Amino acid sequence: MDAFMQAAIEEAQQGLAEGGIPIGSVIVHKGRIIGRGHNRRVQQGSAIRHGEMDAFENAGRQPARVYRESVLYTTLSPCAMCSGAILLYGIPKVIVGENRTFLGEEALLRSRGVAVEVLQDETCIRLMQDFIANRPELWNEDIGE
Amino acid sequence: MDAFMQAAIEEAQQGLAEGGIPIGSVIVHKGRIIGRGHNRRVQQGSAIRHGEMDAFENAGRQPARVYRESVLYTTLSPCAMCSGAILLYGIPKVIVGENRTFLGEEALLRSRGVAVEVLQDETCIRLMQDFIANRPELWNEDIGE
Repeated sequence: MDAFMQAAIEEAQQGLAEGGIPIGSVIVHKGRIIGRGHNRRVQQGSAIRHGEMDAFENAGRQPARVYRESVLYTTLSPCAMCSGAILLYGIPKVIVGENRTFLGEEALLRSRGVAVEVLQDETCIRLMQDFIANRPELWNEDIGE
Repeated sequence: MDAFMQAAIEEAQQGLAEGGIPIGSVIVHKGRIIGRGHNRRVQQGSAIRHGEMDAFENAGRQPARVYRESVLYTTLSPCAMCSGAILLYGIPKVIVGENRTFLGEEALLRSRGVAVEVLQDETCIRLMQDFIANRPELWNEDIGE
């Protein structure tokens, strides 16, 4: 297991332990994590703190150059909002834990030149499968359904 | 002037008075503002609190039904991130103050069925023209350039 995806999974697990939605993300610049986070819908009553957004927020204000040299890791296929943030900041590469439980905007990302790699990691899949089975209403809220 | 665009402009002006980037937004459900906000990059050191994102955040957790009956007003054409949030939550209609100083993802929104109306409001245009002239480096940072 890639150490950065492992860090994203740890974020997801921490979110679950907090009573939240188990999705985590890290942003890596030149081999160093500059931002990490997890979904905080429950914890902060937030409609915008998806895992990837939380990682962007925690990375703070970065120059464009840094984003354009970074890789974003996320345990789940990124939704339209998080994909939009990836496009806004010109992140060139996204590593996705899995897209079996939810398929986000991977096609849009690829159409704009972003390299998207999907691992179909069993830990990521199980985290979301269990969560969706246990809290379907919360999951639907998080994806606007 | 539409009272809701006026409210978005007041948010933008408040942001400018705080030393921030003058972009404001309100989300309106059945004739009532349920969330309002402005860009807080400077004020909160935030990479994700664009005006529209701040309005989503301040609206709090809403059921999908509410978003699907809402109109989002923004003083400036929405970037990829904010357009992604609009798509995630299924906002059906977006009223844009202007797109002369920055053209966001209006075409993407329309291709997904979102109604986008652009007012080319002189107050909105002037707010951004003056800001971009005065603080080009801050503006570029906000749009990932």
